[in-house]
Amino acid sequence: MSEDYRPMWKGLGLDLETHDALLAALGAGYAQTFLTQKDRPEGMKYFDFVMSEVHGLRVKELMDAKAAGRKVVGSFCVYVPEEIVLALDGVHVGLCAGAEFGYAEAERFLPRNTCGLIKSFFGFSLTRVCPYLSASDLVVGENTCDGKKKAYEIFKDMPLVHELYVMDLPQVKSERGRALLVDEYTKFARKMEALAGRKLTVDNLKEGIARVNAKRSAMHRLAKLRAADPAPISGLDALLANQVFFYDDPERFTGSVNAICDELEKRVEAGKGVAKKGAPRVLVSGCPMAVPNWKLPSIVEACGAVIVGEESCVGERGTRNLTADKGATVEALIAGIADRYFQVDCAVFTPNPARLEHVKAMADAYQADGVIHYGIQFCNPYQIEGGVVERELEKAKIPTLRIDTDYSMEDAGQIRTRVEAFLERIKG
Amino acid sequence: MSEDYRPMWKGLGLDLETHDALLAALGAGYAQTFLTQKDRPEGMKYFDFVMSEVHGLRVKELMDAKAAGRKVVGSFCVYVPEEIVLALDGVHVGLCAGAEFGYAEAERFLPRNTCGLIKSFFGFSLTRVCPYLSASDLVVGENTCDGKKKAYEIFKDMPLVHELYVMDLPQVKSERGRALLVDEYTKFARKMEALAGRKLTVDNLKEGIARVNAKRSAMHRLAKLRAADPAPISGLDALLANQVFFYDDPERFTGSVNAICDELEKRVEAGKGVAKKGAPRVLVSGCPMAVPNWKLPSIVEACGAVIVGEESCVGERGTRNLTADKGATVEALIAGIADRYFQVDCAVFTPNPARLEHVKAMADAYQADGVIHYGIQFCNPYQIEGGVVERELEKAKIPTLRIDTDYSMEDAGQIRTRVEAFLERIKG
Repeated sequence: MSEDYRPMWKGLGLDLETHDALLAALGAGYAQTFLTQKDRPEGMKYFDFVMSEVHGLRVKELMDAKAAGRKVVGSFCVYVPEEIVLALDGVHVGLCAGAEFGYAEAERFLPRNTCGLIKSFFGFSLTRVCPYLSASDLVVGENTCDGKKKAYEIFKDMPLVHELYVMDLPQVKSERGRALLVDEYTKFARKMEALAGRKLTVDNLKEGIARVNAKRSAMHRLAKLRAADPAPISGLDALLANQVFFYDDPERFTGSVNAICDELEKRVEAGKGVAKKGAPRVLVSGCPMAVPNWKLPSIVEACGAVIVGEESCVGERGTRNLTADKGATVEALIAGIADRYFQVDCAVFTPNPARLEHVKAMADAYQADGVIHYGIQFCNPYQIEGGVVERELEKAKIPTLRIDTDYSMEDAGQIRTRVEAFLERIKG
Repeated sequence: MSEDYRPMWKGLGLDLETHDALLAALGAGYAQTFLTQKDRPEGMKYFDFVMSEVHGLRVKELMDAKAAGRKVVGSFCVYVPEEIVLALDGVHVGLCAGAEFGYAEAERFLPRNTCGLIKSFFGFSLTRVCPYLSASDLVVGENTCDGKKKAYEIFKDMPLVHELYVMDLPQVKSERGRALLVDEYTKFARKMEALAGRKLTVDNLKEGIARVNAKRSAMHRLAKLRAADPAPISGLDALLANQVFFYDDPERFTGSVNAICDELEKRVEAGKGVAKKGAPRVLVSGCPMAVPNWKLPSIVEACGAVIVGEESCVGERGTRNLTADKGATVEALIAGIADRYFQVDCAVFTPNPARLEHVKAMADAYQADGVIHYGIQFCNPYQIEGGVVERELEKAKIPTLRIDTDYSMEDAGQIRTRVEAFLERIKG
């Protein structure tokens, strides 16, 4: 990193020694996973820089924002409406949750058979290594799955958590479910207004909507370019963009993704790509992958396949829908925001038929030869829905492989063997 | 069994060979667990008879009811309002879910790390051995936990399931949560009216409420008698009564429990009990135990302790509250029913502070020396809440042991060792 951030980290209450170890592992993992790739787009250098400064410059920006009176909101879920945070001049960041770190500590509070994402965010808190968590004036949780819902009851008292706010979410896409979401977003808006000491207006809310939509539109542009054969960008690099989506300054992020897209358009025109034309093309569908969870895509692409899309919250499920900016009142705009998020087809909803349709549509649009369904172990909603998705895709003649795993590398060899066999099948 | 029920079972679509094996195992398990107990109340002979006829006479009664035009409703959860079923002259039964049976079949549809209760009800269906399931005109599910919520999406197409109806449930005890429950019970009432070809009236609904309240009141009477030292009835026998609560003819059940209570009152007066005065007294708290899940109580009581209460859906959590019968309209009565069920403190609610208060109150009322928290493995809500319950009880100087297990006997030895050590502690 270009600067000594240790005083800042110390001020944030981090355990510097453990944090050093984390950063060293993260840096080494990133270098090995990303920097060894061939023919990367030049524009990815921006993301290399972002990752090299992931706990440095970006956190300093948050601290500068806080010093200027702006509020930082941290979250673990795509149901937290960033539009409202940005409208009130806040900063919205995703929190640390993608590594097997501090599990022994986490398991003092959570059963071992809790999903890795939840154990991970407890671990990052308990070992005091997530500067984003400590920088957050407010952590926003939500009643999505049982694991998070019950874990938040405990998380509120964990280290580095200053204030936790939990939103109720519907389980069914009924009229009553929509009304609950509108209600909860309205309450969240009131909470954010109080925190920010500002009022939502039609103008600032429309601006917040436009800023988040711009990020999403850049991701749509990137996603479409991956339909080309050869694919102009690796799945790993595209996943990284989806991951950084949650952390970065919105405008800088949008500009950087669009710059990469300019470059990729030229690649596509020139028929250039990161894999050979005709290389096996895989769509990944399922649970979100937070930094530094690059395990499955790195195995898949090391086997010679290229990932052409992520049907995931850290991916197209999270970015697919734009928010309408039509509305003459704050209430109407908030209702529009709720309508946008209500379309997100997370497996916590029952029934959830839109997700299967989206997987099929993505497989078609991105010319995938097969789908790998990724479940985080002990994630009941995606693991159970994964069986249904697999059966229905196979019925539709879309070869599907289900991989349920956690963040540990212990099963990497087994996964590689299964992926290799799957790639034989889809190109056979 | 007193009669040849094989033609009936065949007509219900059961796999007779597998069903024979199940009944043989069930009978042997029952004899070994229950009939070897000393000083059992005479009145338990009724439950011995019920269990000896569990797939026989009671199922025949259901078939007779069906032949007379009455409807049978099966469920897996205490949130299904029996009052409404009874008001429409229906029969309400709990469905098979308490044994490791057909897991290999179930795991074709569910991840291995699904809770035993869910795998069990899939297993009973897929191996075609649950006559209650097949006899049910309607199976009523509900969005309690993630596991059941997502499993019901699949269960609707499973063997022996004629029609599945799923109720949405709130996750938070808010005004909006209550409104959802009232709404869902109203919809369920409409569904039941259509099924039964009858209309709810103030009179029949009040009668349904009275019949269910009578069952509950009998269980309250039984529960209170267990406060005596020595305890006049074993935890196993009391659990059995709580289990049969879900299956039996309501009036016969109520009468039988009250008859046992008459007998126990005399025992208490005479200072007689099933264990020595001063024997370690344990409250069990946590997940429900369906027939034939007697594993934990049989281990605990074999160690010389006596279980004096069950803070469980198959226990006091399920029976604690009576339903108000005040209301001049069907709507008002349904709202009263919803208010009653809204008090049930299942761990799927967040937050769920009432449950901890109830555990403490029960430990106090029944003079428990300690609490054993029972979690079914992979049940996120109870397993996570269990950690909180344990910490809070220990703070309140109530010794607590957490046991997370499934229906297999594989860990019985380990559990016994832990229970023995716990009993040393609480009487030390």
